[in-house]
Amino acid sequence: MTGPGETSGVLGVDSGGSGLRAVLVVKGGQDGRSTAPLESREPVRTGPRGIDAGHLVEQLVPMARQLMADAGITTLAAVTVGAAGYTSLGDSLRADLPSALARELGVRRLALAADGVTAYVGALRQRPGAVVAAGTGLIAIGTELTSWRRADGWGHLLGDNGGGAWIGRAGLDAALRAHDGRSGGSARLLARGEEIFGPADTWPGQLYPRTDRPALLASFAPEVAACADGDPVATDILAEAARHIADAAHAVCPTSGEVTGEVQVALTGGLFKMGDPLLVPLRAALTERLPYARQVAAAGDPLAGAVHIAADLAEDRLTLPREEDMLHVIAETLAPEALTPETPAP
Amino acid sequence: MTGPGETSGVLGVDSGGSGLRAVLVVKGGQDGRSTAPLESREPVRTGPRGIDAGHLVEQLVPMARQLMADAGITTLAAVTVGAAGYTSLGDSLRADLPSALARELGVRRLALAADGVTAYVGALRQRPGAVVAAGTGLIAIGTELTSWRRADGWGHLLGDNGGGAWIGRAGLDAALRAHDGRSGGSARLLARGEEIFGPADTWPGQLYPRTDRPALLASFAPEVAACADGDPVATDILAEAARHIADAAHAVCPTSGEVTGEVQVALTGGLFKMGDPLLVPLRAALTERLPYARQVAAAGDPLAGAVHIAADLAEDRLTLPREEDMLHVIAETLAPEALTPETPAP
Repeated sequence: MTGPGETSGVLGVDSGGSGLRAVLVVKGGQDGRSTAPLESREPVRTGPRGIDAGHLVEQLVPMARQLMADAGITTLAAVTVGAAGYTSLGDSLRADLPSALARELGVRRLALAADGVTAYVGALRQRPGAVVAAGTGLIAIGTELTSWRRADGWGHLLGDNGGGAWIGRAGLDAALRAHDGRSGGSARLLARGEEIFGPADTWPGQLYPRTDRPALLASFAPEVAACADGDPVATDILAEAARHIADAAHAVCPTSGEVTGEVQVALTGGLFKMGDPLLVPLRAALTERLPYARQVAAAGDPLAGAVHIAADLAEDRLTLPREEDMLHVIAETLAPEALTPETPAP
Repeated sequence: MTGPGETSGVLGVDSGGSGLRAVLVVKGGQDGRSTAPLESREPVRTGPRGIDAGHLVEQLVPMARQLMADAGITTLAAVTVGAAGYTSLGDSLRADLPSALARELGVRRLALAADGVTAYVGALRQRPGAVVAAGTGLIAIGTELTSWRRADGWGHLLGDNGGGAWIGRAGLDAALRAHDGRSGGSARLLARGEEIFGPADTWPGQLYPRTDRPALLASFAPEVAACADGDPVATDILAEAARHIADAAHAVCPTSGEVTGEVQVALTGGLFKMGDPLLVPLRAALTERLPYARQVAAAGDPLAGAVHIAADLAEDRLTLPREEDMLHVIAETLAPEALTPETPAP
């Protein structure tokens, strides 16, 4: 799509609970060179129409213009926006983002993706398998390269079993069992909880009035991992988390009969920084549930996945399954007048 | 406390998540006669200082004056206010309620109680044992008549294991497992959930923006009970709930060596209207965990417990353990000038 004398770039965007991140890759005569990501610390709002496209554009356009100016390019061959909540709340992005980004940034091709899809592509590129993306929440995404499959990702009250909020909540529950003298309690988790949050009697008053309850619960997950060395209750919580995670991966993973070549499974996201206390039982659970799938390290993060999708879209080689609520591509439908790039602000 | 020619009454008050209820019992030459309870549908607010004493007084005073006028009495010998959240959020009630109720209603003796205590006394009067009070949430209260013991009651994110929100959440989790193809799913619960709430994909969008999330989760608990006839996943959820409930009862129940006479255990609250699907496994679990405790029907509800405490307080025969954050009695400290009752409004 890019002539030899023209310098254009592709933009990857990751919109999540902690803000917006964007990175530009310049395509020239040689291999692409990538800029350092820019970050906006303000999460894109969700309104009655779903994810607020106007709020996203408002934050993204200045970031993109700065990245373009710094890299000395005037054209964006393709943009991919991966967004948390896209599957159920992406209507306004599909309706408003293509024209806004064509007008403001001269975007020629646009892909909108669920954050699970960018996480998948970041981890496994365009290979078949399953990816579990987990931080505070947890979702599993799989594909045999014909369709996308999802499991869990229902949030902290309906699921996200095995994710950070789930592990933290289970740890606090075990702490309070010890406090009350109920069975299944852990005195060590109670002691850690009281060191961090103060007397147990004050925990409900601290937790329930907050709007970031899942994040607060998840903040206790590393303490569960720290106690797993020697505390059987903490060890059991992580073993159960591992079973839940492997179960979600199993639900979305193609069978070896469905794909050509190898099936791979990868883990991505902040939860897995917890290390061995979670990873050792998780590797065992994955081997048990998905014996035919090779466990591989994630190649990159969701932002890398967004860039990868944009680069393939620019080069007409995107073969991933397209589904409106998972990976939606707008290319030919962009009106010709929208293709005239506005001069970026200096 | 009441002379032969004087007609006075005692007032019981129950302040909970669905509003305020008050009932008056008139003490005369014969046995007391009880009025029909008056209800305010507005729950008492919780503010930065805890339960808002001013908001409670504002609602209670007109209700009490009406009850007194209807019954033709001018003096309240004693009042008991049982309040949800009292244990951790009752500071302002202790600080402000005695003088306000003495001034406005001529109250001579006042007891402030955790709703778990009024539930206990409603169910078992002044006998030793354990009471589980459960609706959306769940708490167990026990006493050997020297001190109060509590277990659980930590709210839907930290505990309340086996309560309505817990059962409903477990049911929705099982429904979504079936939706995703994860293990442990129930197609029947999924079908019931979609009949009630619409397509599963819309559930997070319906649940998370609400402020009454625990009540919405609990609204699904009766469906779990309805599916327990034949659905092993639903049956397992109720069996696990029963274990949690028995576990909480066990944590607070005195041993037979601690008390004179019989130890009793009773259940109270809306959860147990669910009937046999929960009660059959629960009776078995209680028999297993507390073989020495006799399972008895609750004598009355928490409002009846509040009235009972007020009546005993008026007659100087309240022997229940007094603890500031569980059952707090203010009598002699009421200033003499506060004892002059204001004439009730007609």
